[in-house]
Amino acid sequence: MAPINLFEYEALAQQHMAPVTWDYFQGGSDDEVTLRNNRNAFESIRLRPRMLIDVSDVQMQTNVVGVPVNMPILVAPMSAHMLVHPEGELATARGTGQAGTILTVSTFSTYTIEEIAAAATGPLWLQLYLTRTMEATGSLVRRAEDAGYRAIVLTVDTPRTSRRERDVRNNFLIAKAARSANFVEAPGSDPVTIQQSRHITGTWETLDWLRSLTKLPILLKGILTAEDTLLAMEHDIQGIIVSNHGGRQLDGAIESIVALPEVVEAVAGRCEVYMDGGIRRGTDVLKALALGARAVLVGRPVIWGLAVNGSEGVRSVLELLRAELEMTMMLAGQPALASIDRSLVKLL
Amino acid sequence: MAPINLFEYEALAQQHMAPVTWDYFQGGSDDEVTLRNNRNAFESIRLRPRMLIDVSDVQMQTNVVGVPVNMPILVAPMSAHMLVHPEGELATARGTGQAGTILTVSTFSTYTIEEIAAAATGPLWLQLYLTRTMEATGSLVRRAEDAGYRAIVLTVDTPRTSRRERDVRNNFLIAKAARSANFVEAPGSDPVTIQQSRHITGTWETLDWLRSLTKLPILLKGILTAEDTLLAMEHDIQGIIVSNHGGRQLDGAIESIVALPEVVEAVAGRCEVYMDGGIRRGTDVLKALALGARAVLVGRPVIWGLAVNGSEGVRSVLELLRAELEMTMMLAGQPALASIDRSLVKLL
Amino acid sequence: MAPINLFEYEALAQQHMAPVTWDYFQGGSDDEVTLRNNRNAFESIRLRPRMLIDVSDVQMQTNVVGVPVNMPILVAPMSAHMLVHPEGELATARGTGQAGTILTVSTFSTYTIEEIAAAATGPLWLQLYLTRTMEATGSLVRRAEDAGYRAIVLTVDTPRTSRRERDVRNNFLIAKAARSANFVEAPGSDPVTIQQSRHITGTWETLDWLRSLTKLPILLKGILTAEDTLLAMEHDIQGIIVSNHGGRQLDGAIESIVALPEVVEAVAGRCEVYMDGGIRRGTDVLKALALGARAVLVGRPVIWGLAVNGSEGVRSVLELLRAELEMTMMLAGQPALASIDRSLVKLL
Amino acid sequence: MAPINLFEYEALAQQHMAPVTWDYFQGGSDDEVTLRNNRNAFESIRLRPRMLIDVSDVQMQTNVVGVPVNMPILVAPMSAHMLVHPEGELATARGTGQAGTILTVSTFSTYTIEEIAAAATGPLWLQLYLTRTMEATGSLVRRAEDAGYRAIVLTVDTPRTSRRERDVRNNFLIAKAARSANFVEAPGSDPVTIQQSRHITGTWETLDWLRSLTKLPILLKGILTAEDTLLAMEHDIQGIIVSNHGGRQLDGAIESIVALPEVVEAVAGRCEVYMDGGIRRGTDVLKALALGARAVLVGRPVIWGLAVNGSEGVRSVLELLRAELEMTMMLAGQPALASIDRSLVKLL
Repeated sequence: MAPINLFEYEALAQQHMAPVTWDYFQGGSDDEVTLRNNRNAFESIRLRPRMLIDVSDVQMQTNVVGVPVNMPILVAPMSAHMLVHPEGELATARGTGQAGTILTVSTFSTYTIEEIAAAATGPLWLQLYLTRTMEATGSLVRRAEDAGYRAIVLTVDTPRTSRRERDVRNNFLIAKAARSANFVEAPGSDPVTIQQSRHITGTWETLDWLRSLTKLPILLKGILTAEDTLLAMEHDIQGIIVSNHGGRQLDGAIESIVALPEVVEAVAGRCEVYMDGGIRRGTDVLKALALGARAVLVGRPVIWGLAVNGSEGVRSVLELLRAELEMTMMLAGQPALASIDRSLVKLL
Repeated sequence: MAPINLFEYEALAQQHMAPVTWDYFQGGSDDEVTLRNNRNAFESIRLRPRMLIDVSDVQMQTNVVGVPVNMPILVAPMSAHMLVHPEGELATARGTGQAGTILTVSTFSTYTIEEIAAAATGPLWLQLYLTRTMEATGSLVRRAEDAGYRAIVLTVDTPRTSRRERDVRNNFLIAKAARSANFVEAPGSDPVTIQQSRHITGTWETLDWLRSLTKLPILLKGILTAEDTLLAMEHDIQGIIVSNHGGRQLDGAIESIVALPEVVEAVAGRCEVYMDGGIRRGTDVLKALALGARAVLVGRPVIWGLAVNGSEGVRSVLELLRAELEMTMMLAGQPALASIDRSLVKLL
Repeated sequence: MAPINLFEYEALAQQHMAPVTWDYFQGGSDDEVTLRNNRNAFESIRLRPRMLIDVSDVQMQTNVVGVPVNMPILVAPMSAHMLVHPEGELATARGTGQAGTILTVSTFSTYTIEEIAAAATGPLWLQLYLTRTMEATGSLVRRAEDAGYRAIVLTVDTPRTSRRERDVRNNFLIAKAARSANFVEAPGSDPVTIQQSRHITGTWETLDWLRSLTKLPILLKGILTAEDTLLAMEHDIQGIIVSNHGGRQLDGAIESIVALPEVVEAVAGRCEVYMDGGIRRGTDVLKALALGARAVLVGRPVIWGLAVNGSEGVRSVLELLRAELEMTMMLAGQPALASIDRSLVKLL
Repeated sequence: MAPINLFEYEALAQQHMAPVTWDYFQGGSDDEVTLRNNRNAFESIRLRPRMLIDVSDVQMQTNVVGVPVNMPILVAPMSAHMLVHPEGELATARGTGQAGTILTVSTFSTYTIEEIAAAATGPLWLQLYLTRTMEATGSLVRRAEDAGYRAIVLTVDTPRTSRRERDVRNNFLIAKAARSANFVEAPGSDPVTIQQSRHITGTWETLDWLRSLTKLPILLKGILTAEDTLLAMEHDIQGIIVSNHGGRQLDGAIESIVALPEVVEAVAGRCEVYMDGGIRRGTDVLKALALGARAVLVGRPVIWGLAVNGSEGVRSVLELLRAELEMTMMLAGQPALASIDRSLVKLL
């Protein structure tokens, strides 16, 4: 029987993935405290549904930094999709497009961003790490712009890749296990060592440099505090993605859904706010929207879908979540995104 | 040995019910978070019993929207009792009447509301879903009035039936598994598809239409917020049942017992307030009364009693709960319902 | 090896007691929520120990309603000690006296209060239930006074004996299992039925009647609220024992240690305040003293000691607890009872 | 494979240690509530990492009461290292020095403080118990000063050694199991009985006496309250170590990390504040620093390292923790100790 929810995809995916690959995608840093908390935090939020509202027609289309999508659910950037399916990001892009939403392609994709764009059936964003040299980074941005990517998502929580102990125990090096397609052609580059190399630490000035390179919308991924939000507002950025990198960077970091309200408050409407981390149910999406997110991003569940059934699995995972959100909006008396606000939740 | 509490009835009932039927009645939506929370929330409420009060004569008779009952414990509406006992709602009605309280008959009963009324030994309420057409719905209301039903309980939390994953996995469709007796005779109706069909979404205006159809008291079942309570007060209704549909509609919805105080406060005495969801002990009833409920409704335990022993099982379950409430009132120093108030509980 | 703490006595006692007897003493009412909470509540209280205080000489002698004791730890009333040891209350009285503290003899002792007084090596209190008739109750008070009992402990939380489901399942009736020695000689009495009979419900006026019978100090056992404390202050009583009957009466009742502060505050120094419920460690005693108890009472652990080794077991249990309290007072920088106050604890 | 974190050292160490020795070092007092809470308290603290800060060069050197160290992680005093490795404190001192930090040598070391100083490759502090006589204690202080120790850490939470039930059950006496090297040569002393003997209870005046003996910095170890901190500020001391003795003294005592803020606030910058208790991860260190600790001390993990691999194990444990702290500071956007403050944490 086909999986009926994302947790069933998770169980099934484990059977389709090599154990070390499974560990790479599932794991978090250190004791995986944040990984667990991300999920548990949703359960402590209660919904306050409204009744006797006409929900016969639920509208969940929105636009995200100007790009129209069918639902407020996007695909988060993740490296190396080829590890779980030979078609890798090509399949993910097709499945995501069929679901009517956006794939955020990782800097460390296993197909080039151009190959992915060619295969895609929907809009794409490029996730950007500051790696190696400013030149290499800048070149990737320009290539993305040329290939029709619609926004740049700058990951700011990874001045260094955290230690993920499952990978250490497995002697698993992502840079050895998967090619880094985007850099393989650059003269003098070595795909094996790229991700292992010391990252270039970005600073707030990096944003201005990035802004000078491209006219695409820029989103910062990895902000977790009001303080950093206020600093971000001093630069020309279009969105913030509240994220702790799926519990894969600083273990013990605050849960995304817990950090979301303070970021939303600090933004005060000056740019769009997104979140990722722990979304597995339509009710999770609704809670994030209620706390001020314009949309959410899902990561691991998309990899599960990809592992189980390629592009069709990706589409199915996203459609399941979309159907759950639709049902949830109906049952909560929210036929449109616009009416969803903080009063819909109670934090116990 | 006869079951000595409701939990023992639960265990016994499972042996009397087909697994798919068991899952249908026991289950909740999605991850069953609200189902569990409904129950757990009672454990976090502490009782503050009073001493040295004459409790030799405990009075728990009350009246509910004008109907006298022996105890502040009513039977919640549930579909398709015939699935657990051939006499279905006829037996439930007899057992409930013997216990001196009210059965709320479901729109989707497996005997007609007239058959149930003929078998009943006590007062009945009719639970109303807005299904199919306004005409069919209105017809049912008039039939209920003719058959002597004492109130209409309009369920407002089901603009669509939620996805209950146990049923999905079991490939169980209630509309196929059980006849919908009340509609089978209507020309052109098809009992198999009624419950599956898109519900008519009610709105606040529906209340005025319903009011125009009948002079019976109207109760709204499924209100969980002060906001909706205030809207309800603008209409001619006689009662609100605080309910999350036993954790079967919006998963993650606030626990009934947690929502109860804000509804009671918003009502400010203008109509009666009831609650259901998680009542398994006399102490649970007392906690709900202390937080402002005029009475509580119990659902699944009545099905357990019906499955185990027909009408006698129903009566026994209700009598067990009644005896527990009596003991509880004695031990809490509350010989009468009138004195029970908020000071009896402490929320930790 | 001899038990080194009360929990080891508990484990050992189970081997010395018939299962139904074990259940009778260990169990609580309904779901045993209060039984568990009584214990767990202590773990949520943190101690704030003070340093660099001379604790070479710890003083823990005190007096309780005027009776000097070696430690602020007394023995709580419990029925039917003969069920766990043939010498019953005689042994308990000897062991308790050897430990230098007070035994509270139950109305339902299995030796007469006179026999117990004759065997005792220390002071005794009489626990009083209002049973059968005022005459029988009054007679017991006068006999206690004649036999040299030092105080009357009126239990006020038992207008009816709660339903303890372990006993129901075991078909165990304490009144059949154990003789009620104090009433066996009364003309027309029937020890089998005394405890089963409907209790006389006491009221606040009962206190004045009791006061008129005896000049002994009167303590009320079972008060859990500030409201009842204030009412008690209108009568001539000398002490209040904050208690939920060891989780054996109203299940869901507030934990004794949680209720203690509000009772202490309401008393405002006008009488002595005690508590029982969940004391198993010297640190528990210290926490109760910090929250305003003059002394604590322990129940089940004394029965464990009695079951394991008669009077010597009782003495050993009490000495273990005394030694723990002494160590605890040293480590907390509290060489005397007088300095122990609320600042010693933090409620998280 | 070499252990990759401290928990793996823990598991490995158990295989290298005799069970009774394992219990001695691992255990806490009574029910080990504080032992567990010390650890759990860290998980309830959330980190609020900052982004887009140049963390390419993390500086974690600091000085502690004037002594430069490579990291804000010191080694806590523990008795009898020889029980887990024949080279005992000599190896610990070498490994700690190689890691660039300070070993706090216990009064009850199994090599003399002079032998340890001779073997040491880094600075040492002397932990001081007030035992036997003032003369013996004073003599030890002077010997430490002569041997080049850099500070005196006076343990104030041990007026008496608590009862550790694992040891009682194992019939394990540390004073019999291990020699107390520092006193063995003193005329008339008996190393077997030293630790068993009634401790001399120190008082606040003891500080002035100690101050008169030595010009070394004095730190008080075992303070847990603002009240005691304020008293300490009336004496000439240079540091406070917030500690509950690793859960080995007063069970139920407040967690060190929970007590830390009130001590820091009471100190108000007048001396340095440290903490120990439950540190197992770099993120734990960062949380303690954020709450005001100048550095932390680790105990059991160092014993694990020593048991597994002597001085090299000690060095490895400290280096693991150092590397984790470095990574943590990077990921939290804190390239220097000076910027770390309370805003880095959120207490849920």
